[in-house]
Amino acid sequence: MTGNFTFHNPTTLHFGTEALNNLGNELARYGNKVMLVYGGGSIKRNGIYDAVMQELRKAGKDVVELGGVMPNPTIDKVKEGAALAKSEEVDLILAVGGGSTCDYCKAVAGSAYCEADPWDYYFNNWGEMTCRWIPVGCVLTMAGTGSEMDSCAVISNHAEQRKKFYYFRNPDFAILNPAFTFTVPKHHMVAGIYDIMSHILEQYLSGTNDNTSDYIAEGLMRSLIVSSRKALANPEDYEARSNIMWTATWALNGLIECGKPTDWMVHMLGQAVAAFTDATHGHTLAAVSGAYYRLLIDRSDDAVKKFCRLAANVWGVAPGPTERETALAGLETMENWMRELGLAMNITDCGADASLLEGMADACPINDTGYAVLTREDVIEVLRKSL
Amino acid sequence: MTGNFTFHNPTTLHFGTEALNNLGNELARYGNKVMLVYGGGSIKRNGIYDAVMQELRKAGKDVVELGGVMPNPTIDKVKEGAALAKSEEVDLILAVGGGSTCDYCKAVAGSAYCEADPWDYYFNNWGEMTCRWIPVGCVLTMAGTGSEMDSCAVISNHAEQRKKFYYFRNPDFAILNPAFTFTVPKHHMVAGIYDIMSHILEQYLSGTNDNTSDYIAEGLMRSLIVSSRKALANPEDYEARSNIMWTATWALNGLIECGKPTDWMVHMLGQAVAAFTDATHGHTLAAVSGAYYRLLIDRSDDAVKKFCRLAANVWGVAPGPTERETALAGLETMENWMRELGLAMNITDCGADASLLEGMADACPINDTGYAVLTREDVIEVLRKSL
Repeated sequence: MTGNFTFHNPTTLHFGTEALNNLGNELARYGNKVMLVYGGGSIKRNGIYDAVMQELRKAGKDVVELGGVMPNPTIDKVKEGAALAKSEEVDLILAVGGGSTCDYCKAVAGSAYCEADPWDYYFNNWGEMTCRWIPVGCVLTMAGTGSEMDSCAVISNHAEQRKKFYYFRNPDFAILNPAFTFTVPKHHMVAGIYDIMSHILEQYLSGTNDNTSDYIAEGLMRSLIVSSRKALANPEDYEARSNIMWTATWALNGLIECGKPTDWMVHMLGQAVAAFTDATHGHTLAAVSGAYYRLLIDRSDDAVKKFCRLAANVWGVAPGPTERETALAGLETMENWMRELGLAMNITDCGADASLLEGMADACPINDTGYAVLTREDVIEVLRKSL
Repeated sequence: MTGNFTFHNPTTLHFGTEALNNLGNELARYGNKVMLVYGGGSIKRNGIYDAVMQELRKAGKDVVELGGVMPNPTIDKVKEGAALAKSEEVDLILAVGGGSTCDYCKAVAGSAYCEADPWDYYFNNWGEMTCRWIPVGCVLTMAGTGSEMDSCAVISNHAEQRKKFYYFRNPDFAILNPAFTFTVPKHHMVAGIYDIMSHILEQYLSGTNDNTSDYIAEGLMRSLIVSSRKALANPEDYEARSNIMWTATWALNGLIECGKPTDWMVHMLGQAVAAFTDATHGHTLAAVSGAYYRLLIDRSDDAVKKFCRLAANVWGVAPGPTERETALAGLETMENWMRELGLAMNITDCGADASLLEGMADACPINDTGYAVLTREDVIEVLRKSL
């Protein structure tokens, strides 16, 4: 833990089959008007909408509804929600959905009373959030993004073909019932699982020190691998789904980045792909990982050492003749697991083709905290190898 | 994660060599009068007292001092502090010390405005904390108890020969500079390390489910083992001391007990020994662990399986001819590490003798959530084997 840092994560998390029973107590802390936000309406088919509405009614809340939050929520939709939240003077924004809905609600909560254009002010210029914040609660229906216990919101701008993030504030509370994730289709379940794995790897695969955070990360990955296979075999394996949901939360709430560098390049690459294809986030990450990780192993001895440790401690790979071979064997073992899950193994599967590479490279910020710093040409090369 | 639970840990933690630079901003949140609490005065010799006082002066605070908090703080001392905090109407209690000082400050913060006798009300009868709470900050100078990020306070009552705990509230903020732990004498450093290990084990060695919490626990233990050896070789190895300090925090802030049963019997046994000997907490835990764990392995197949997993995943022990032999080999490997550290391996080393066994058994609450439920005779037998 050689770095200096502050850890503060005040979200109250209720977890388990009975988690929704805590909603009433949480609602009692806020004023009367609640904005209920959700996505495409699957929550109306699976009964979660009714269960939440019942709690809202029991609490005597005045409910304003906003549906139609898309998987990669747009800044236009954020503006629509912000205008509604302000005009209705809502006291609480309640997200019912997955990470996109949670992200969206954080962006709305920080934009409703922001005088400036939120895209320019927050996402382009990282202006400080000084305006009034509307409290946010989340009833999570999908595991993956960790949005329920962090301050980040990722928002897309189609006009600019960009997907950017900003750190607003943590949700005030979150309700996680793993059984609510049973009906998530396999394509999205596995995307969520790889999003979790990538969050962990992007914090683990950087730095050279001996750091408690990396040991915790290894524990989370080991648990995720075991549970992902169980959930694939039986999507209603509560224990497996609960482990996946909890791992998702801790993979991206600040814990495993403490005191060490991180490298978010896979997310930068994946988001560039998503900006041009609207493919599911987790699949875009899976599609670019292999090529990026091979570049790191080719360029950096520190990367070789860390991939070696990953191979041994997480993937159970016996040491090969050289560290480089062990590192690559670990990566191949991981890729076999990815194929088992049915993840997109290239960006062609995500709907991309060679004509988009230049545009994607323009849309891809480059971070300089990893084992190698990419040039624009490297980005294009990684994407080309990912075709 | 089969259980239902709520996770909420709002403490703001500042960590690193520059952590104390955050004290000024924290102090600005509270009123003018600060009660500065510390132990035997070692902070005056190592410069930490002066550094903290400088920040208090810069912030223009009016300081009331209370020193002399003992390693196992007594209820009489709590009453003294509570009376002082009330009469001086302090706005913040600032603990500068180890876990005992932090525990003490939480007990004072919850007792100052409590009408009832705090021993009877909180520790004997677990009355709800409804009185006014005085905010608490901690500048930690020793790693071990995790008191900086949990709500627990362990307090001794010499008249009743009891050591009991109560969950007050989390410190509002904590400042952790691992370099502040450099001057902790070896006897106390290793006691802290075993306290951490025991906290992790007491949450890990229970339950039969496949649970993410146990994987995180394994990661924490692996990190602790590596760093403990480095710190033993070089007490000023910052990285090692920082990993130990951070592991201590996460070993007992609620994370690794999520969704699973726990078994705090080693703490119950150790505290019973401490109540009669006043030996250092971590050493009393080490002194009783071996006999208790062997009893579990003798009595429970589930215990054998979990000790087997511990042997493989944490202690790197290859599978033996039977699970029981693997389990015991893991335990022996752990005991070799304990001897390396110089921990008390029996309660005789803690100052106990056979004449105290009955009294200790009377002082030892029995918990029923572990792999075996002890009778009073079992407690005496475990203590006798620990002589």
